[in-house]
Amino acid sequence: MKKYWGHIVDVFHREVFDGEIVVEEGRIKQVKRCELPDNGKAWPYLMPGFIDSHVHIESSMIAPCEFAYMAASHGTIGVVADPHEIGNVLGIEGVDYMIESGKNATFNFCFAAPSCVPCCPPDIETSGAVIDAAGVEQLMARDDIGVLGEMMNFPGVLNGDPEVMRKIHAALKHGKPIDGHAPGLTGSDRERYALTGISTDHECTTVEEGRACISAGMKVIIREGSAAKDFDKLCPLIGESPNMVMFCTDDCHPDDLVRGHINMMVRRALAKGYDLWNILLAASINAQRHYGLDWGMLQEGDAANFIAVDALNTHFRVLQTVIKGVEVFDCNASFGSVRQYHVHSLENHATFFPNRFEAKPITEEDISLDVSKLQTLHVMLATDGSLYTGHDAIKVRYNLFDGSRYPWGEVQKMVVLNRYQPDARPVVGLVRGFNLTHGAIAASVAHDCHNIVAIGANDEYLVKALNRVIEMKGGQVAVADDEMTDLALPIAGLMSPLSGHEVAYRCLQLCEMARRAGCPMHAPFITMSFLCLPVIPELKITDKHLWDSKNMKVVVG
Amino acid sequence: MKKYWGHIVDVFHREVFDGEIVVEEGRIKQVKRCELPDNGKAWPYLMPGFIDSHVHIESSMIAPCEFAYMAASHGTIGVVADPHEIGNVLGIEGVDYMIESGKNATFNFCFAAPSCVPCCPPDIETSGAVIDAAGVEQLMARDDIGVLGEMMNFPGVLNGDPEVMRKIHAALKHGKPIDGHAPGLTGSDRERYALTGISTDHECTTVEEGRACISAGMKVIIREGSAAKDFDKLCPLIGESPNMVMFCTDDCHPDDLVRGHINMMVRRALAKGYDLWNILLAASINAQRHYGLDWGMLQEGDAANFIAVDALNTHFRVLQTVIKGVEVFDCNASFGSVRQYHVHSLENHATFFPNRFEAKPITEEDISLDVSKLQTLHVMLATDGSLYTGHDAIKVRYNLFDGSRYPWGEVQKMVVLNRYQPDARPVVGLVRGFNLTHGAIAASVAHDCHNIVAIGANDEYLVKALNRVIEMKGGQVAVADDEMTDLALPIAGLMSPLSGHEVAYRCLQLCEMARRAGCPMHAPFITMSFLCLPVIPELKITDKHLWDSKNMKVVVG
Repeated sequence: MKKYWGHIVDVFHREVFDGEIVVEEGRIKQVKRCELPDNGKAWPYLMPGFIDSHVHIESSMIAPCEFAYMAASHGTIGVVADPHEIGNVLGIEGVDYMIESGKNATFNFCFAAPSCVPCCPPDIETSGAVIDAAGVEQLMARDDIGVLGEMMNFPGVLNGDPEVMRKIHAALKHGKPIDGHAPGLTGSDRERYALTGISTDHECTTVEEGRACISAGMKVIIREGSAAKDFDKLCPLIGESPNMVMFCTDDCHPDDLVRGHINMMVRRALAKGYDLWNILLAASINAQRHYGLDWGMLQEGDAANFIAVDALNTHFRVLQTVIKGVEVFDCNASFGSVRQYHVHSLENHATFFPNRFEAKPITEEDISLDVSKLQTLHVMLATDGSLYTGHDAIKVRYNLFDGSRYPWGEVQKMVVLNRYQPDARPVVGLVRGFNLTHGAIAASVAHDCHNIVAIGANDEYLVKALNRVIEMKGGQVAVADDEMTDLALPIAGLMSPLSGHEVAYRCLQLCEMARRAGCPMHAPFITMSFLCLPVIPELKITDKHLWDSKNMKVVVG
Repeated sequence: MKKYWGHIVDVFHREVFDGEIVVEEGRIKQVKRCELPDNGKAWPYLMPGFIDSHVHIESSMIAPCEFAYMAASHGTIGVVADPHEIGNVLGIEGVDYMIESGKNATFNFCFAAPSCVPCCPPDIETSGAVIDAAGVEQLMARDDIGVLGEMMNFPGVLNGDPEVMRKIHAALKHGKPIDGHAPGLTGSDRERYALTGISTDHECTTVEEGRACISAGMKVIIREGSAAKDFDKLCPLIGESPNMVMFCTDDCHPDDLVRGHINMMVRRALAKGYDLWNILLAASINAQRHYGLDWGMLQEGDAANFIAVDALNTHFRVLQTVIKGVEVFDCNASFGSVRQYHVHSLENHATFFPNRFEAKPITEEDISLDVSKLQTLHVMLATDGSLYTGHDAIKVRYNLFDGSRYPWGEVQKMVVLNRYQPDARPVVGLVRGFNLTHGAIAASVAHDCHNIVAIGANDEYLVKALNRVIEMKGGQVAVADDEMTDLALPIAGLMSPLSGHEVAYRCLQLCEMARRAGCPMHAPFITMSFLCLPVIPELKITDKHLWDSKNMKVVVG
């Protein structure tokens, strides 16, 4: 039995009162009004903890048990996690890994069954696995799966694609909610999308879109992550429809997660003057109601998930996070972090980490490209931090390109190599915007199929970076002149088993090295990782070919 | 039994040859010449690991077992560690803690008995402990103490101070080396200092001083740390007297240790074109000879301490670190870092972490200062990253100071509070250079007695920052407007039990917050930590008074 004193923030009765919370066996045994003794310092505010209502933990590049530690230090007591990325690599085996890893932490997870694995037909790009309707049915029946993950294939929903509808029906059958993903969908299409039972969307980027969503009966999950930042545009919904909004990050990269999580959205909402009760609905309670989670709101009998903060203003600090009755974070305390000296060498990686990685080292010859034989150069125009690319089609004969002299100004080679088959041939494309004048970057994180990608100044740098990724069986690499830095991602080629802070630090070092190689981008690896995503306009590249994602067709040079 | 193939760098025979190293039970069983099979990739170079010949681990703000992990990832296989800082807080109990913590890591430690605890008489400042001659005698007799730590009291040596000589004789009696510390000592003084048996100096800052040291028979430990950077000036000694130089960091702060260690000095020495064999003498072998360490140089029968690197040029990367036959670091591998969810709350800190911290929260009244009552304002002039301060004496009557209106331009209050006694009164001084216009910083790391220090824009910020340090029983705090960030240092008020990367990240965040408060310094906490060191000119402040360290006297306003 443990007692907590403070100003109790009771969301249910919309009241703050002084009192005592008695915790026993992971639940709140008693909430008692009482005077707080004067012990010479300020008492904390005790309130429900935060929930990230939609997150791909893989983007944090750390295992779920480590993600839990990092998130809890910012007052997050649970997440709705969609293992979509690892699903594309390992299928249901990947989903199982995430659930198992999560069990190593004292934390609350609600896992989704990824609904769109892969998100593209296999003739466009190669994924590591498929979770078909039968697989989704199997997952939805499980107790450890709480929701059907974001249904990205919204054309499939609107067209009543039988495979898609089977997945939706599997969720409905088991009484589990279905998350949506339908950027830009309005009018009757939006309403039909909602009618199928899909009940959330985190892809709204304007307040009008958000209102359309809500009026169609869907909840809006306001997203403020590492890539997409929608909070400023969508926050009016907190005041307008307080029961219909939630908060999420979607993707939270390691160097952001070390700094904050949902608490940052709560701070910003407080700064904008929204009602505390409405903010707590969005940051915690609505997600519990929507997903049927028993994570508690400080009432007697509730699960003992709550946080202590020092103030109820925009500068509040999380002092303590209690999950299932365990103090998993305390700002005055220190976690005994015991490092075990098990080294998992390349040979026994497979024993510890699930992965699918068959690519073999390549040579400069494998990625040669004689542009003089091409009629048109198709160049992707990349913008720092953006998922969208431009498409520059340059007629070779009208230009002064000397095919043998690579690189050509700011146009650089981008290589994609299928990582799931040992004998695949790399695909070579062209990209502008990275300006890696004397180095290269390479990675095995490339949405959504996570093949191996690289961009570089010349073939030597490219091969060096690519082969390092292959040697590590997944990871991120930056080469600048004779220097190289890397981060191994042995868990599915997506995540590291290291601590969140170590991963964050190495990400900083990778970006530094890319800058030393000439790249002016703030987030070169994130930008590169989206150049393969064939569902986003305009020109993309996969392990199979250049893809015109505006006109949905293969590009031939 | 484990085998390692590669290009073997044999320092003893000054030869690189291809072969195989067989390791068994922590020692090198066999070194065999053989051809390296073509396995499609480059074989590594196998060579002796690096040694930091003089380091205060406390400056890395992490426990010795975690320091070992961080250092090993940069190819360091052992260190000569002087627990001088924790000695000033906890005496021999602190030394014992460092040794015990070190045992949790697979690493090589040679611990020194701190020779100057405290380094100042108790009427100048209050330390937490004393290690007198009897204490040093007791330490020198122990098997786990290998050296007498840097003898800073060089006037005492030259004057034949009996207490000092007793300490030196204790080391000589047990056949253990004595480290020196004598900045600027030349001529016959240098020779007399060396004649006592003191055999190293890491305080040389010019090559002439280094040569004087060597000609007096002392070895020069070239220092390139976070604070002092002497490599560029002293590196000619590597070529001139290759048997007489070693490498050290002295103080290596967490945000530097995450990036590199002795490997960075080796890289720079290679870039300058020094002979590989001489560099390896400085980086590893000389320390082993000097301190009588059996840490090995890749000969049959040696301890299996070595590293694998990818090249023998300035861009080399450490691929693997083997210590006592254990692969403690592998760039292709991943350490299974298991985080244990023990939270050590304030109440049970003492069970886990040794500390001495009795200070009680203070009020604004405690640090009030009415300058109108003073005749002269004595202001410390601080410079970013420097140990030295200027001394500005301002006649109050000639100035337009309004005593009640604090702050006065760039002159800010600095507070020092004795942390070892519950009833101590804070000492208030003035400092220029921090420019914390809307915030404060505070810390319990303050050389050498590690009392509590703070600098801030007004009394409210100062009290907030100071009381947070007191609440944590040690740590670093930065306040900017309504925001606060902190790092708890429950181990003697000097170190954190968190991981090196987490501590490094929090240090970055502390510096960011100080910048947000207006401070233009790159390293405000390091600079502040030296404002108390009464042995360095010109004006300093202790928990007892302002101290004119040029004229060795108390300053009265």
